[in-house]
Amino acid sequence: MKYDKFFSADVPSFMRSPVREIFKKVDLSAIYSFAGGYPDAATFPIEDIRRISAQVLEKYGAKALQYGATQGVPELREVIARRYGVPVENVQITTSSQQGIDVCTRVFVDPGDVILTTAPTYLGALQSFKSYRAAVRTLGTGDALPPDRRIKFCYVIPDFQNPSGETMTLEERKKLVAMAREQDFLIVEDSPYRELRYSGEPVPTIYSLAPERTIHLGSFSKIFAPGFRLGWMLGPVELLDQIYVCKQSLDLCPPILDQYMAAEFMGSGALDANLQKSIALYRTKRDKMLSLLEQYMPQGVSWTHPEGGLFLFLNLPDGFDTVALYDRALSAGVAYVAGSFFYPDGSHRNTMRLNFSFLDASRMEAGIKLLAEVINQK
Amino acid sequence: MKYDKFFSADVPSFMRSPVREIFKKVDLSAIYSFAGGYPDAATFPIEDIRRISAQVLEKYGAKALQYGATQGVPELREVIARRYGVPVENVQITTSSQQGIDVCTRVFVDPGDVILTTAPTYLGALQSFKSYRAAVRTLGTGDALPPDRRIKFCYVIPDFQNPSGETMTLEERKKLVAMAREQDFLIVEDSPYRELRYSGEPVPTIYSLAPERTIHLGSFSKIFAPGFRLGWMLGPVELLDQIYVCKQSLDLCPPILDQYMAAEFMGSGALDANLQKSIALYRTKRDKMLSLLEQYMPQGVSWTHPEGGLFLFLNLPDGFDTVALYDRALSAGVAYVAGSFFYPDGSHRNTMRLNFSFLDASRMEAGIKLLAEVINQK
Repeated sequence: MKYDKFFSADVPSFMRSPVREIFKKVDLSAIYSFAGGYPDAATFPIEDIRRISAQVLEKYGAKALQYGATQGVPELREVIARRYGVPVENVQITTSSQQGIDVCTRVFVDPGDVILTTAPTYLGALQSFKSYRAAVRTLGTGDALPPDRRIKFCYVIPDFQNPSGETMTLEERKKLVAMAREQDFLIVEDSPYRELRYSGEPVPTIYSLAPERTIHLGSFSKIFAPGFRLGWMLGPVELLDQIYVCKQSLDLCPPILDQYMAAEFMGSGALDANLQKSIALYRTKRDKMLSLLEQYMPQGVSWTHPEGGLFLFLNLPDGFDTVALYDRALSAGVAYVAGSFFYPDGSHRNTMRLNFSFLDASRMEAGIKLLAEVINQK
Repeated sequence: MKYDKFFSADVPSFMRSPVREIFKKVDLSAIYSFAGGYPDAATFPIEDIRRISAQVLEKYGAKALQYGATQGVPELREVIARRYGVPVENVQITTSSQQGIDVCTRVFVDPGDVILTTAPTYLGALQSFKSYRAAVRTLGTGDALPPDRRIKFCYVIPDFQNPSGETMTLEERKKLVAMAREQDFLIVEDSPYRELRYSGEPVPTIYSLAPERTIHLGSFSKIFAPGFRLGWMLGPVELLDQIYVCKQSLDLCPPILDQYMAAEFMGSGALDANLQKSIALYRTKRDKMLSLLEQYMPQGVSWTHPEGGLFLFLNLPDGFDTVALYDRALSAGVAYVAGSFFYPDGSHRNTMRLNFSFLDASRMEAGIKLLAEVINQK
């Protein structure tokens, strides 16, 4: 039986995540992987979770297992509102911050509409944008827009970007806000790593600079545990209201027990205690990674110096092709993600993304050594 | 600031769920509500959940909190495959069976494409279909199709339908399958209530009759707890593969701890033990509801006699308008959902859906008495 005739016109634009495809092919534990965006499992507050799970079932009983409000359970919305200093009606809980990206695209974008992004940018966002046949254009390049189409929103990850690790300065944020106001588009500020700062000073969020036209996406994946698939959105009520209606038909409501647990974790101070430990651990890992790159990488290779987050970005000399190099690296036992996957146009084939949160120090050293050898052998 | 210009062309077709809007307006615990589709909280296996939650954290540790496969954790897919007698590659876990409906529409339907449904049908499905601007047509009426458009799929709830409570006979299922094969469309078989049968004999699933063109949607909401927001899809691998790619950008993967808990609950036999208790409880409630309707409803009112599920459907004499009657019912302290909301064309304003799973026997009696008075006063 042939199935192609049943698919919608969007389907040919679906992109398979090369990261997720790598995970299907290889046993991660058998190689040195800098490919994923996995937090270090040592940061997962298992004891807190055990305790909180029992507490929440005791405190809320059946309510923690029943259907709940589409906007999220009030307790979680309130804790988030308090933490980030916004009214509770500006908070919508999402079933993962990936859903936040997807629902923004669904609610704002028709095929051919323009989304501005930085280049490189988050692969999962590109997957979503392309799946709705958006016209993705690079911020700041002044690329011509398709005729009769408007920019619907600009998507940025201002803090410790995935994949580059870089942080937008206050001036860059203000410039983007001015541009958004002048050209009248929205800003989707994806902020999963913001709380993971290891050095330098926090920069104000774009949401704080332009609350009237920004949707800020937060995530529990890097400050609690990714397995909970919980995130949040801060934004103007007029926008959140349509997102709320859309979310009714997407999944009715986010998981309830998980939301109560996240609320308890964040509200009780356990999150902040755990976050301090995570930051200390990741700071050490980032520093280790930077010194290993110094030690092993050949002349001509350069990399970013992130102040936080989980990733840094490597530039190899012109002529290198990290997509072509990939199978050799895998055979040697080391994995990365080719940088070109993060460029809307697939360019920059001499770059790669390296994650520094997942491997422990000794495996990190063995992996970087191997990777340097693969690059040297080219 | 005006926001309308930012919305996609789909947004004007978004429908607010009248059920969810009711829940925002009234305090459910203060009235007699037959409106929701809430399971009886007494069926929630709180003790099992407490035990299993600790067990799963002990057994899987950090793995239960990390990112996982987009198809779902292997343990849960295997338990479901075993229970329903299908190969594991035909199983995709969904973040709620509502997501199953939505992702089918996303992957199969372009604006103007035809979806066949029964009338009445599940409101959350209509919300999703309309949000993608599908042309919804009623099965069996021979309504003319839009020019140059094909039927992409037929959506049915063959067992104890929401809202009618009715079950398709084997002959009706075979006839639908024959029609789907002849006219070459898919069937989406939504099956959240199938395991809740209180009398009569099970009828084979449509998926078992036409596995090559059916996507079967299962749900943990009525056999475990709705708060987990977990469901599954059974279907041809060629279709599941595109749904898998779509799901990468929807939410990466379903909640992990929740999936391990559901796998343990289903795989250990705890689900079947709990199901027997739920069935016994709901059988009593259904019987009570039917006898209360006999006792209190005026001449000329008729209703369905479901063999399972959570709902039955009331027909009032011509001239009654349950939408208009609704505010009076609420003031009197009783809630239902007007039946016309379940009709794609909004017709049948003399019908209403009543849930019999949520209220206990004495509240059920008080509620039906009140409802009969409201109808009598008309």
